[in-house]
Amino acid sequence: MVGLRQGWIRHAKVLAVMLMAGGPLAVLARTDPLPSWNEGPAKQSILDFVARVTKEGGPDFVPVADRIAVFDNDGTLWQEKPLVQGAFLVARVRELVAKDPSLRHQQPYKAVLEGDAATLMEASEAELMELLAATHSNLTQAQFVDEVRDFLRTARHPKLGVPYTQLGYQPMRELLTFLRAHGFQTWISTGGGIDFVRVFAEQLYGIPPQQVIGSSVVEKFERRDGQEVLWREPRVDHVNDKEGKPVGNDLHIGKRPIFVAGNVRNGGDIAMLRSTQQGPGPAFQLLINHDDAAREFAYAEKDGASLRAAREGGWTVVSMRSDWKTVFGGMP
Amino acid sequence: MVGLRQGWIRHAKVLAVMLMAGGPLAVLARTDPLPSWNEGPAKQSILDFVARVTKEGGPDFVPVADRIAVFDNDGTLWQEKPLVQGAFLVARVRELVAKDPSLRHQQPYKAVLEGDAATLMEASEAELMELLAATHSNLTQAQFVDEVRDFLRTARHPKLGVPYTQLGYQPMRELLTFLRAHGFQTWISTGGGIDFVRVFAEQLYGIPPQQVIGSSVVEKFERRDGQEVLWREPRVDHVNDKEGKPVGNDLHIGKRPIFVAGNVRNGGDIAMLRSTQQGPGPAFQLLINHDDAAREFAYAEKDGASLRAAREGGWTVVSMRSDWKTVFGGMP
Repeated sequence: MVGLRQGWIRHAKVLAVMLMAGGPLAVLARTDPLPSWNEGPAKQSILDFVARVTKEGGPDFVPVADRIAVFDNDGTLWQEKPLVQGAFLVARVRELVAKDPSLRHQQPYKAVLEGDAATLMEASEAELMELLAATHSNLTQAQFVDEVRDFLRTARHPKLGVPYTQLGYQPMRELLTFLRAHGFQTWISTGGGIDFVRVFAEQLYGIPPQQVIGSSVVEKFERRDGQEVLWREPRVDHVNDKEGKPVGNDLHIGKRPIFVAGNVRNGGDIAMLRSTQQGPGPAFQLLINHDDAAREFAYAEKDGASLRAAREGGWTVVSMRSDWKTVFGGMP
Repeated sequence: MVGLRQGWIRHAKVLAVMLMAGGPLAVLARTDPLPSWNEGPAKQSILDFVARVTKEGGPDFVPVADRIAVFDNDGTLWQEKPLVQGAFLVARVRELVAKDPSLRHQQPYKAVLEGDAATLMEASEAELMELLAATHSNLTQAQFVDEVRDFLRTARHPKLGVPYTQLGYQPMRELLTFLRAHGFQTWISTGGGIDFVRVFAEQLYGIPPQQVIGSSVVEKFERRDGQEVLWREPRVDHVNDKEGKPVGNDLHIGKRPIFVAGNVRNGGDIAMLRSTQQGPGPAFQLLINHDDAAREFAYAEKDGASLRAAREGGWTVVSMRSDWKTVFGGMP
């Protein structure tokens, strides 16, 4: 009996020590919320910022209603070599040519099929609009969504051989989850099409359609074949790139994001990142650098504008090579 | 002792009966979630619909992610005689005339100051654009928000003598709260300016800026006086009225609302209400009829289009006079 009692006392002492040290809470805190990130200044700056803005009574506390986080998509949340919507456009052109083989010899379709970027760069605006109309317009929203779904189910990345939806960045998905767990509302602001990205954003990133901002074509609500439908017109409405991003963000969100992430490629995220530094209060800017030729791709900007803006603005630059333990995470 | 024991038994029996009848839950259910609504078919159809789409395992169950409710603002959530943004425009013109008295004798300013609707109806597009530019544009978003805030603080309804923010409809505010308590995300889709309504929607209706859809002017993100700002251009971007409403809703929400409310005035909500009846699954349409000259205003449409559409579509028509116990609820 004495042995039993001593055992119980020892157990109680252990419990007391655990409780005094924070016990189960300390264990929870030691669980790494960003396991795919290597220790280093990038990861630490994210953790520090979130701790700072969520500390009630602290000087930088931000109420939940104002915890808005906005992420670029291509090259920030998933790979962009090739641009997935570009691959979709090529697939749509192939479908059209299968139905009407005469298109094979006409521009700009010929250039698309042959991957002839030089000719496409020289295409007239009328030709590019024809391409947009043929691949993204003159159908209903519901039909367009079906086309995108079919494409995502069947297409494979030309080099990596897997569906594009397997090529989301695992460290960024962890970051989205981490931010949401701390009361952030997570948004996408993409240069790509708003209706394209909405098809997969919820499943891949946990971001619902109403939190996706992007480029758009003009839509009309009108009667066709006895039904009132949303019809996609062959005209560009909003281009959500460069200076268009803060504008799209304001139209959809109506308040300044406090956490914004983009990537180095063509300077497309500079304006969005900068726009968060114009107001009072804390804000965090994250810029991903694609420097990982072994696990993904290594590419830079010709003019180096994004990295220069990051230096000037004191943004956190993420090196995919050294800051990320893993790159791709597959579909959840 | 026997008495005590019998008392306890009686108490236990009462408790048992209460529990069998649903107990505390039944008490909760008896708390009226819409106390400003009179009993009747309108109130009952709302309660029935919400019960139907939230009943797990039921044939019409709708998951929380798809419970999107969209409300028109003017005449649906607050009074629209006069249109509050119209009163704002007049106030802005008065400010401009105070700074530059020569404007007093120029059109379209003269017509605005004199309440000369006939002349305004005849104004050229260039004159109307000048009016928009002068009152709503050529300033930053932040400056515009300040102007709206100042106006709402100081302006009074010409007939009712109180701030416009005291003129939200109490029954509709209860409806918003009731829907949110059942997992709905509540939105505004207004013919008015998106940036105008965002200024007061959160305080008055509990609807945050990112859940407001409306008409907009073109914005630019550009450098002015050494700061990068969102600048309001003197050009209309989107008109969120009539067939523009389903388009605006799709752009901002990206999925079909299942609960939509508008009002009788100029047919502005017909397309939005109809658009919810195009898809599969349950959807609810509510149309408010302003027939209460004693407590608010009584007005009808010249062509009767909204009420005709309601009959054809089987929508729930709300009579302010007979369905509402109270009309105005003040600022929360």
